[in-house]
Amino acid sequence: MILFSLILSYNLNFAQNEDSIAIRKIYDEALSSHIAYKNLEYLTEKIGARLCGSQQLYDAIRYTQQLMMNMGLDTVYLQKVKIPHWVRGEKEICKVISSKAGTTELDNCALGGSIGTGVQGISAKIIEVTSFDQLKALGKDAISGKIVFFNQVADPRHINTFQAYGEVAYQRGRGAIEASKLGALAVIVRSLNPSHDNFPHTGIMGYDTTVKKIPAFAVSTNSADKLDELLISDHNLMVYVRNTSKWNDDTIGYNVIGELRGTHFPEQIITVGGHLDSWDLGQGATDDGAGCIESVEVLRLFKTTGVRPQRTMRAVMFMDEEMHQSGGKKYAELAAKNNEKHYLALESDEGAAVPVGFSLQGTDQQLASIEKYLHYLLPYGIYFIQKGYSGVDLQGLKSFNIPMMSISPDNSRYFDFHHSANDTFKNVNEREMQLGSAAIAALLYIIDKGGY
Amino acid sequence: MILFSLILSYNLNFAQNEDSIAIRKIYDEALSSHIAYKNLEYLTEKIGARLCGSQQLYDAIRYTQQLMMNMGLDTVYLQKVKIPHWVRGEKEICKVISSKAGTTELDNCALGGSIGTGVQGISAKIIEVTSFDQLKALGKDAISGKIVFFNQVADPRHINTFQAYGEVAYQRGRGAIEASKLGALAVIVRSLNPSHDNFPHTGIMGYDTTVKKIPAFAVSTNSADKLDELLISDHNLMVYVRNTSKWNDDTIGYNVIGELRGTHFPEQIITVGGHLDSWDLGQGATDDGAGCIESVEVLRLFKTTGVRPQRTMRAVMFMDEEMHQSGGKKYAELAAKNNEKHYLALESDEGAAVPVGFSLQGTDQQLASIEKYLHYLLPYGIYFIQKGYSGVDLQGLKSFNIPMMSISPDNSRYFDFHHSANDTFKNVNEREMQLGSAAIAALLYIIDKGGY
Repeated sequence: MILFSLILSYNLNFAQNEDSIAIRKIYDEALSSHIAYKNLEYLTEKIGARLCGSQQLYDAIRYTQQLMMNMGLDTVYLQKVKIPHWVRGEKEICKVISSKAGTTELDNCALGGSIGTGVQGISAKIIEVTSFDQLKALGKDAISGKIVFFNQVADPRHINTFQAYGEVAYQRGRGAIEASKLGALAVIVRSLNPSHDNFPHTGIMGYDTTVKKIPAFAVSTNSADKLDELLISDHNLMVYVRNTSKWNDDTIGYNVIGELRGTHFPEQIITVGGHLDSWDLGQGATDDGAGCIESVEVLRLFKTTGVRPQRTMRAVMFMDEEMHQSGGKKYAELAAKNNEKHYLALESDEGAAVPVGFSLQGTDQQLASIEKYLHYLLPYGIYFIQKGYSGVDLQGLKSFNIPMMSISPDNSRYFDFHHSANDTFKNVNEREMQLGSAAIAALLYIIDKGGY
Repeated sequence: MILFSLILSYNLNFAQNEDSIAIRKIYDEALSSHIAYKNLEYLTEKIGARLCGSQQLYDAIRYTQQLMMNMGLDTVYLQKVKIPHWVRGEKEICKVISSKAGTTELDNCALGGSIGTGVQGISAKIIEVTSFDQLKALGKDAISGKIVFFNQVADPRHINTFQAYGEVAYQRGRGAIEASKLGALAVIVRSLNPSHDNFPHTGIMGYDTTVKKIPAFAVSTNSADKLDELLISDHNLMVYVRNTSKWNDDTIGYNVIGELRGTHFPEQIITVGGHLDSWDLGQGATDDGAGCIESVEVLRLFKTTGVRPQRTMRAVMFMDEEMHQSGGKKYAELAAKNNEKHYLALESDEGAAVPVGFSLQGTDQQLASIEKYLHYLLPYGIYFIQKGYSGVDLQGLKSFNIPMMSISPDNSRYFDFHHSANDTFKNVNEREMQLGSAAIAALLYIIDKGGY
């Protein structure tokens, strides 16, 4: 009995030790290598922002495909996807004309998906609201013929900045619809970041087929404060907005996929991905060049260290997360159609700051099984695995009933960059990104090895 | 989905008791206020780097004293301290002269405390070593008359960058002594950061009264790699170094102290501090302007929120951490002389990135008592309180046998800035610093309230 339990505990310890060594190897390689960061530099500084339908998106598809081929992955292929094609047009104008304070230019941009104002632009009185309730209470009489300024502030007191963002995102998502219902001519939306800066933060806005489309702009948080201040002293402020944004016909994009074949269960797929498209104002570095390059790096880490997973590891660079999520949908559609066996999926789309945990969209049982591996990651600063959302691009995989996960980097700085000209390569720290790739690879290694 | 699970965990974690409410108040105020960040901006962008004996140090003493007086603290005073006065002199030169590759300028600076080369500078052959063992094995014959290049790389594989730094710090601390013993004319030390950049990172170097003093330089990690590469192809490389650094007579500085009187035990002191002096190459923002301003902010948070500690909270801006630690020594000396009752001391001198834990230099019993409060901080991302070092400036307080603590921000980026021109205001993130001040205030509140 004693002997038996000794042998058992010996084997257990041995296995644990082997796994700890493998994870240490992964981290050693990630922290010693400059490859991933140089790849991100190329993707963001040489290629740049990757709006759906832009030349840079196609350059990025070719680049990441070539990158994975050069790595000697077992399979590299593309999945054709129909993607939307919106163009921003000329630099937008948004200025306030006050009889008292003169003209004030605001830091602004059209929101993603907005129609244009026409070349003449739109001049109108502006009216500020901080909720849809307030908008509706004001009603048609007050709103009709005006430009509505949505100015609910993202609450900086939330510890999770995604919560601050989530609470105010409705202004961008449905502001133009609700304002148009009451006869507004255009909307201006305060950027959704809780920090104060001079960057307008773009992002997708929505229309409703039953409601007249009106143009939608974002202004920086500092400009929003300025506008609010001007409105206090002058209720008759006029605003002039102009943009030439428009929708082109849908076009074609490609999910870019690379696979490292599993040693024992090659037919079972573990997806690790990010999205290759980005908004156009910065370089799409944090959102989500880093997630794509980390996904490729995860496969490189396995290959280079010789830590070979039992299942097939598939890096996916999804198309069109930012607009219609057509890449994620196509990926799931083909997975189902081809009767693929999926085991787990993980997305990196919450930035590349220092990783502190993982989020799991799945069952309690899956959480209980996977949480048992947390102790392997704790020495590396990963201190939680908890229920939550995974990634936008994974949502089509729900019907597979697999654990869908997301890496959770610290999000203090995330919305400083998000969808703005500030989302640049230089705002991604090499070491933080190395730790991210290593954490993902380590987690996938141990789940693949130990199961759930 | 994210929102729902966040609300759930919010409710679970924030059982509505008094302490949780007080801590929530502290965080709300810290995250909503721009005061501390603006104070840091003034200290670093308007005043700038604060080398001992520099005009900027005196400006900073006056500024922080005034700042605490304006806050209406109960007591604000200065402690006179004799401080060293080293001056860097003219921009240093360090260039490699190769018969094959021509002349290469290296990113360089004199190490803090180095003597000068004399205006003519020093030309000599260069010899590279990566350990003192190797240096000693080479011996006088090989070393005499040469410039020694210490090039042990800070190992990026350590998860804690302070460990990487600690392992190679001997090169800067004792390199000139050991090389001089063998007849070297000067030393060049690879910067101690594990990252790759073009910034020479300075810091204090040491001499021994029994050994001839020789000049000491730092080169950037990229320049060190370059020099190493050049040496591979040309063992007869010549190097020219020149600096005009020198020591002036000691001068006078002042620890700057502000107190918020305790409600129940005003005679018992809780110290919270940082050091006001800095190296001269950047702006002394991360090291340690942020720690000083956080300490002041902690008192402001108590005052503004009405969360009043039982014991006296004392913010201390120490003098001369970087050279001879005379400020910390004087503080402890006066504490003993005046029979002060000290209860706890905490330093913030490990940067202003997102806080993840606290370190405790104290007894097992103190740790056990204080660790019990961790659950209050976990919802804010503080996930450990563990034994370790506290702060350089607190070491004189050892004889009080009190818990000496340090806040531990994530240290991934710390050595990117440390002692270099890269230590600037713009490299401190407002939100991360807000979280730091709040974490310190919350911890001090709960220990003061619950005891240890």
